Amino acid sequence: MKNVKAEIIAVGTELLLGQIANTNAQWLSERLALYGINVYNHTVVGDNLQRVEDAFSNAHHRSDIVIVTGGLGPTEDDLTREAFQRISKLDIIEHPPSMKKIETFFEKQNSVMTPNNRKQARVFKGARVLDNTVGMAPGMIVTYENTTWIFLPGVPREMKQLVKNDVFPYLQKLTGNEEIIKSTVLKFIGIGESALEHELSDIIHNQSNPTIAPLAQDEGVVIRLTAKERSKEKVDDLLENMKQQILAKVGSHFYGFDDEKLENQVISLLEEQHKRIAAAESLTGGMFTDKLISVEGASSVCRGGIVCYDTKVKQDVLNVSNEVVQDKGVVSAECALEMADNVRRKLDASIGISFTGVAGPGEVEGNPVGTVYIAICQNTGEQLVEKFAFQGTRNSVRRRATLKGLEILFKYLK
Amino acid sequence: MKNVKAEIIAVGTELLLGQIANTNAQWLSERLALYGINVYNHTVVGDNLQRVEDAFSNAHHRSDIVIVTGGLGPTEDDLTREAFQRISKLDIIEHPPSMKKIETFFEKQNSVMTPNNRKQARVFKGARVLDNTVGMAPGMIVTYENTTWIFLPGVPREMKQLVKNDVFPYLQKLTGNEEIIKSTVLKFIGIGESALEHELSDIIHNQSNPTIAPLAQDEGVVIRLTAKERSKEKVDDLLENMKQQILAKVGSHFYGFDDEKLENQVISLLEEQHKRIAAAESLTGGMFTDKLISVEGASSVCRGGIVCYDTKVKQDVLNVSNEVVQDKGVVSAECALEMADNVRRKLDASIGISFTGVAGPGEVEGNPVGTVYIAICQNTGEQLVEKFAFQGTRNSVRRRATLKGLEILFKYLK
Repeated sequence: MKNVKAEIIAVGTELLLGQIANTNAQWLSERLALYGINVYNHTVVGDNLQRVEDAFSNAHHRSDIVIVTGGLGPTEDDLTREAFQRISKLDIIEHPPSMKKIETFFEKQNSVMTPNNRKQARVFKGARVLDNTVGMAPGMIVTYENTTWIFLPGVPREMKQLVKNDVFPYLQKLTGNEEIIKSTVLKFIGIGESALEHELSDIIHNQSNPTIAPLAQDEGVVIRLTAKERSKEKVDDLLENMKQQILAKVGSHFYGFDDEKLENQVISLLEEQHKRIAAAESLTGGMFTDKLISVEGASSVCRGGIVCYDTKVKQDVLNVSNEVVQDKGVVSAECALEMADNVRRKLDASIGISFTGVAGPGEVEGNPVGTVYIAICQNTGEQLVEKFAFQGTRNSVRRRATLKGLEILFKYLK
Repeated sequence: MKNVKAEIIAVGTELLLGQIANTNAQWLSERLALYGINVYNHTVVGDNLQRVEDAFSNAHHRSDIVIVTGGLGPTEDDLTREAFQRISKLDIIEHPPSMKKIETFFEKQNSVMTPNNRKQARVFKGARVLDNTVGMAPGMIVTYENTTWIFLPGVPREMKQLVKNDVFPYLQKLTGNEEIIKSTVLKFIGIGESALEHELSDIIHNQSNPTIAPLAQDEGVVIRLTAKERSKEKVDDLLENMKQQILAKVGSHFYGFDDEKLENQVISLLEEQHKRIAAAESLTGGMFTDKLISVEGASSVCRGGIVCYDTKVKQDVLNVSNEVVQDKGVVSAECALEMADNVRRKLDASIGISFTGVAGPGEVEGNPVGTVYIAICQNTGEQLVEKFAFQGTRNSVRRRATLKGLEILFKYLK
């Protein structure tokens, strides 16, 4: 199929009320473009049967592929099935595996399934049913009068999972697109977007396959490389070659590919070095330890931590000395160092890390909001402490301190 | 003008390529709703004359007000004027004040004005021209065959400025709308979307002002009420009355309005009751304490916590007894209770809460992934412990356990 015309219809009054933006359409469009599928229209329509039907009818007459997001849920204003039935006259039947899944879900939750939940297991007769592994309503692909209709849940997480697992492989077969597109992300920490772009300006300006797209994110800067070629080998070569060129210039800030997270890299380094970590957290309140423990396999290297938000807890549980608390204050390099060293001993770890500072709203002991000390102490006696001044609200300061802790620890272990 | 039907058309291929999301439509919709103008469709169409014309033609036949963003710039693919001329046959003329402004801009920049820039000063004959004070292309309002067409630049900053200064005052006059619209959100925990809708089905079916829109979110279910009336008092009465009706039915699951979060409610309840809390977290790894400490003012009631991810930390730091660890295991009601009671004592709190369980990947001591015990112990001797089986990945299990902890604590304090 050449020059395929696709369009995306989002069903949901919340979009027309401006409660959320149609990010599903953006996400889908960006990826459809990679598969060489042209998207000619986005439409948003509310939970109104006639208007959904009208939108579907317009789409049916002008597009080869129509992707519909939303309107598959259990409530009365989920009208996607009814609207498509009006134009296609297709029968709607219950899909036993989906029904079974819904029943099992309610059983496991020990809660009663209300009758309207059955609706989510209803599919068009003859449809290819797409298993929703992260939610209840399955997706569907229906071909009707030469148009391929793809129905997906509106919840972004569910929609994306169905698209990656089922829809893209299906579309690639359908369109017979033999070009292979592959995209990879390189992640950096401790360097800004413009500095990174500056370092790489020669490379960025002199080539177009792979394309190089830098993007600033909360957790550092990423570069997305996207290559297209006729064979898997060629695509891989292109990407590998470009990775090497980029890492030769800015490798010291690199920490991982694609879904790799800084905390995963920290856990890996700890594993390699047979080190065990414990954290003493004041303003970060558990956020740092939470990040580490989010990593599968963290148990082998992460002992845990003490959240010593209260000064008395710093003293009574973590044994920070009275001298430090009185003379230097709890927001001080000395306090951070005692916290890190004491949590390391108390939890029998090889490395202790600590966070103390002012998240706000008000200042503490004359230290302005955003002042944060982060310390690391090893059982070898090695130690370091750094002071930071973070900007932002209470929770941005807390988040930035946590990320900075991961960054310091990563560089320290590396 | 009653029950005005409006729609929004965005012109620009960059939207169809997924390079940006259609945030203009979201912004406009949110504000139009407040003016009592119902938005029934969003459309995105690329820079293609025929397709823009088709989108305009559809809109012209179904809407009273059409707002078009984008396609007014100087380049060849800015086609909004041409497309609307095809359907309206209106003359396009140069607007001297706009032309003057463009010339002045280039003079000031000391740069040469290319001929295509003249295009930006071209307007429909008879149009109301809206002065763009932050960019070059003016906006336009044209009434044609009873439909009001409003053309705006696609750059969000320019679009917003024109809308605030000119479009909203115009629309308010046009619609003669003196209705006041007010919206409020009620938040619930411990009840699913379909169960909530089931409980409220009578209310939902029997009225339309306020409208009642349930929406499932990560942290429970919310209901948005939106009321329209001639006076502020009447709107408030409508909303208040509906709140009472809803709370009479499902009030036991209610925890807050609008931006209120469950953790804020928990902190408020602790403050009111002069209770101080400490947490012992195994699988949740600090996530629970982090949630509490995210709340401004948490310091007065949140002592902190111990993250005892490792069994030895449970024993050595938290003094969980050897008998419990050996006979019952770390994933047990007994272990949860000891953790909660010991963390309470150790951190000198009035309430201790604990989390122990299996986040995965593998099972622990014969307990499947998702098994979680949550216990609460008070200094009064009161205690409770509950067992759960959560679904999902490692981090969904951890997140669900954390939310469930907030829910249990909220209900316990209430």
